[in-house]
Amino acid sequence: MHYIDPHGIYYLGPKGSFSHEAAIKFLGSIKGKLNDVATIANVFDSIKSVNDVGVVPIENSIEGPVNETLDNLYIHNNIYINAIIHLPIKLVLASSSAKKISDIKRVYSHYYAYKEAQNKLLKIGIKDVIPVESTSKAAIMSSKDYSSAALCSLFAAKLYNLNILADNLQDHINITKFAVISKKMNYRGKRTTILFTVPDRPGGLFKILEIFYRNNINLTMIYSRPLKSIPWHYYFYVEYEGSINFSLLNKIRQNTPILKIKGSYMVK
Amino acid sequence: MHYIDPHGIYYLGPKGSFSHEAAIKFLGSIKGKLNDVATIANVFDSIKSVNDVGVVPIENSIEGPVNETLDNLYIHNNIYINAIIHLPIKLVLASSSAKKISDIKRVYSHYYAYKEAQNKLLKIGIKDVIPVESTSKAAIMSSKDYSSAALCSLFAAKLYNLNILADNLQDHINITKFAVISKKMNYRGKRTTILFTVPDRPGGLFKILEIFYRNNINLTMIYSRPLKSIPWHYYFYVEYEGSINFSLLNKIRQNTPILKIKGSYMVK
Repeated sequence: MHYIDPHGIYYLGPKGSFSHEAAIKFLGSIKGKLNDVATIANVFDSIKSVNDVGVVPIENSIEGPVNETLDNLYIHNNIYINAIIHLPIKLVLASSSAKKISDIKRVYSHYYAYKEAQNKLLKIGIKDVIPVESTSKAAIMSSKDYSSAALCSLFAAKLYNLNILADNLQDHINITKFAVISKKMNYRGKRTTILFTVPDRPGGLFKILEIFYRNNINLTMIYSRPLKSIPWHYYFYVEYEGSINFSLLNKIRQNTPILKIKGSYMVK
Repeated sequence: MHYIDPHGIYYLGPKGSFSHEAAIKFLGSIKGKLNDVATIANVFDSIKSVNDVGVVPIENSIEGPVNETLDNLYIHNNIYINAIIHLPIKLVLASSSAKKISDIKRVYSHYYAYKEAQNKLLKIGIKDVIPVESTSKAAIMSSKDYSSAALCSLFAAKLYNLNILADNLQDHINITKFAVISKKMNYRGKRTTILFTVPDRPGGLFKILEIFYRNNINLTMIYSRPLKSIPWHYYFYVEYEGSINFSLLNKIRQNTPILKIKGSYMVK
């Protein structure tokens, strides 16, 4: 899959976000203007031409699926997944002017990042943080406040010229998957994603999983999400190993009121 | 199922929260001290004696599962579901002293509540709100700020003596399910919840759903959640119609490395 001079690359901002880092790592070598936008829905809405691409978080190894991304893939029938990028989430403590941890008067970070780093922060004497909207926002705040530090990514720390005072502060192996999305659908790749609803009777989901099982295909991700229009009715989000297989998908189509194919893609 | 004088009833606060409203509606006629606690994890940790009960949100018809509740049910092997309560989420605009909407200078609310009411608020001339942590917090703020209003529940508005200026501001049918939890497991009820992992091979989940299908049992809820210890491995959260059935559960146990039975319960 090649992107030839995309018109625009849209990612969930602000600058220095993990989506920004994923976009640079995966798309950094190609041309196209990088644009940070405020919400995941904005990324989807920004993809107007077939040459635009978007980068959004889709699943975290600890927190689970990013519901806003799943639901936007369901809503936008003409937007497909072109690649999945794995990015390890590592947290550093960084400051614009403090040279050692004891010089720090306050620390900015996002609540989830703080929870992930709480134990190691305590060991270096940091008991709490000032919560802000994102770790990249924390880096921006700290770059303007000389007695402070940010708990953020190495990428954000470098972008805002902060010095690293401590690294690898996260407790767990923490990986976020990002989806590269566009209006182009690919038919071949390492994995494929489909979304579907099932009839409201015993065995609705079972009948679909049976088709995968009979074809010896492994599912790598299955999530259910509410169909907001009807309480307690759901659509399913399934990722499986391998390319689009029309014989398989035709059998699935016979057992699903709604089937949306989101394409095959590489996994990096 | 009867609660005879529980020692304590713990709910996700603050006072005036939807969990508080669910606790009052369902448990209001029984004795036991009502206690608001700060987080869902705190509700689980507060249940120390067999006579304590907790009330936590478990699923919303628009947003989906409440992950913190699912994960805490998985972690706490000795805590079970005793009842599920359906509570419609209706939003009102309420103020301590404004008599009409044009007197309001600012509106407090939670971000999600605002998103749910955004369209109807625009029609009555309210373009934005000041975000706070919860709709009950919004009611507290408004009770102290005479030129303001809160977008909150009718329950919170009454609790903090606010006057209703507009009601039914939510866009969709929006229902939250709450779980009443305790250290007692019930064997009979309208529905049953189990949590399990599956072997990492094609058909792992299929084999479990086949058991339900062969027994003609309908699933009412199925969610997957990450096992935080191993990236991209999951446990499944399944609710099905009917009581605990040991023949069924024995068959399931043979196909699951980990099976946790969370009890049968009434649905209100």
